[in-house]
Amino acid sequence: MSFKLQCSKCNKEYPLDTKLWRCIKCEAPFKLQNNNIKKAGIMPYIDPYYHGIWRYKKLIPFSESPITLGEGATPTITPQSKLSFKLEYFSPSGSFKDRGAAVSITRAKAIGIKTIVEDSTGNAGIAASVYSGLAKIQARVYMPSDAPPAKKAIVKACGGVIIECKSREEASERAINELTLNDLYIGHSWDPFYIEGMKTVAFEIFESGCNPESIILPVASGTLLLGLYKGYQELTEMKLLKKCPRLYAVQGEEISPIYQKLHGPLIEKRSSSIADGIRIANPPRKDEIINALKLTKGDAFVVNDSEIINAAKSLWRMGILAEPSSAAAYAAYLRTPDFFGKSLIPITGTGIKTLDLLKPIYR
Amino acid sequence: MSFKLQCSKCNKEYPLDTKLWRCIKCEAPFKLQNNNIKKAGIMPYIDPYYHGIWRYKKLIPFSESPITLGEGATPTITPQSKLSFKLEYFSPSGSFKDRGAAVSITRAKAIGIKTIVEDSTGNAGIAASVYSGLAKIQARVYMPSDAPPAKKAIVKACGGVIIECKSREEASERAINELTLNDLYIGHSWDPFYIEGMKTVAFEIFESGCNPESIILPVASGTLLLGLYKGYQELTEMKLLKKCPRLYAVQGEEISPIYQKLHGPLIEKRSSSIADGIRIANPPRKDEIINALKLTKGDAFVVNDSEIINAAKSLWRMGILAEPSSAAAYAAYLRTPDFFGKSLIPITGTGIKTLDLLKPIYR
Repeated sequence: MSFKLQCSKCNKEYPLDTKLWRCIKCEAPFKLQNNNIKKAGIMPYIDPYYHGIWRYKKLIPFSESPITLGEGATPTITPQSKLSFKLEYFSPSGSFKDRGAAVSITRAKAIGIKTIVEDSTGNAGIAASVYSGLAKIQARVYMPSDAPPAKKAIVKACGGVIIECKSREEASERAINELTLNDLYIGHSWDPFYIEGMKTVAFEIFESGCNPESIILPVASGTLLLGLYKGYQELTEMKLLKKCPRLYAVQGEEISPIYQKLHGPLIEKRSSSIADGIRIANPPRKDEIINALKLTKGDAFVVNDSEIINAAKSLWRMGILAEPSSAAAYAAYLRTPDFFGKSLIPITGTGIKTLDLLKPIYR
Repeated sequence: MSFKLQCSKCNKEYPLDTKLWRCIKCEAPFKLQNNNIKKAGIMPYIDPYYHGIWRYKKLIPFSESPITLGEGATPTITPQSKLSFKLEYFSPSGSFKDRGAAVSITRAKAIGIKTIVEDSTGNAGIAASVYSGLAKIQARVYMPSDAPPAKKAIVKACGGVIIECKSREEASERAINELTLNDLYIGHSWDPFYIEGMKTVAFEIFESGCNPESIILPVASGTLLLGLYKGYQELTEMKLLKKCPRLYAVQGEEISPIYQKLHGPLIEKRSSSIADGIRIANPPRKDEIINALKLTKGDAFVVNDSEIINAAKSLWRMGILAEPSSAAAYAAYLRTPDFFGKSLIPITGTGIKTLDLLKPIYR
């Protein structure tokens, strides 16, 4: 196994078991280089005795003793001929974040950590608490006070300690500022090990035989997008594919840093507050996200609450219990389905956690 | 393919596409005989191109064009050396009922049904609505008015029509009494096709390599228990196993028809209302359930709210977000773990739907 942890800006190298969470010199996020890929084909990298994301454990650092709750191996369904959905809510805590948290907490356990720290509007905090509980690690989660009540309840029930903050921004800041020497910060916007879990989505899409031209997904801190991009990069290194599908990032009109970086400021902003999972104003990996969109010839779109509600309604009526953030991706798709060609939308989380936000579809 | 639909009492035969839901002569539930099993081993019966329960489509009637949302293929985790959990909430609507509903609705679609009828405290009504939505069939669901509000909201969001009833008993009665000629009643307590979906749990446990001596599970109408029993019977017909594991049915003290049939009336009944999913006073297949318990040398137990809450708390703290009914099974296990030997508990549904009931574990 040969992985290299580096600053994504100056390339300064760090040990894999560092408790730092960004480069001390440039304050840029870390990147993880995988030097394991030497052979063509996926079979040399598969461990068939493991389930879900750990099927790819040879490509994941610190994977000797996985902390696992059965994450990964989510189904892909194709209810319409040109559109598939990957149902990421088939997971321990009901969202794609479980893939990342499983790897981050597995590393935390392996390097002897007693307390991890995360900041989150919900799903990532839940995932961190779920795996920390299993690993007997304390989770401290900084959440904005307007996070969905059900999400806060789940964090608490799993043994996580919530620090309520005034806003999502304050949650990010305090999570970092209040770190002690005993804590490991696994903030999903920063932690490169989180992305190692996310990249398994690309491996699964490939192994399912689904070969989309476009992947349309909600983007906040970009872990899923960067995971997909990294996974597809590794698949091209294995000579299994020529390129990554076009990646399309979907954001809410209110908070849309990626869209605005590509297309300039939004003049008219309608409400998009229902999409509680995509509310990050300044994602640390913004440049990497933009880069992935450009290199795959993708783009970014914005949608608003009314479009999200309509999309959520359609999804639920076909039996797909999507959270509002994933309905946002479907809303963007619905505008111009033909534009995207053969497409895949990851349904990133279950809407059962956010029934209060989804009232318009059942009242 | 060769399946035979018969009265479970008088053996009178019915066509597979009948719209009747019980024997017109004895009013007993139907049973479905599978005459397909001629070869030893599981491989002749597996279709590797299908996911989840449809991997076993050769053993399921009406499976030519499955109505599927990715159900089945749930993970088995073993956080303690002698105890495994099968996580049935990795599913389209968050409960094991999706397996049964997928098969029942697939049949409904195949025989040209426009409206199906179900009665349920929640999970089965949700599963019926989810698959009906996908199949463009109308679902009419009779629910007791005290069913968890989140469960009602999900049924509505999926396009199901709810008929609120005073009690669970009234829901069962009205569902049947208000049937019209255009309706198909797929009440999970009665429908033998539902059990065909449930039996796939046994196939998956077998294929996972987990070989439990005991399976401990919550029992209301007994679909999962009877599905497990049928699945294991088919595995023994394939000469893969000598016998079915011991099956242990767990019920709440308040409503415990199976326990009382075996052990006589309960003198002291503490509250068990938190286990909203196991509240059926007179399951139509009671005799079959008792028979399966006796033939596998199993038994029945009762637990109360305080035990269920403690068990739920332990489960959530190890990252298993169980609904109260499955926590009930774990509560029974916790009393005398050594008694059960190598055990498996199916976590039948996600507790995210019943956060209001689970307040004691996060407040």
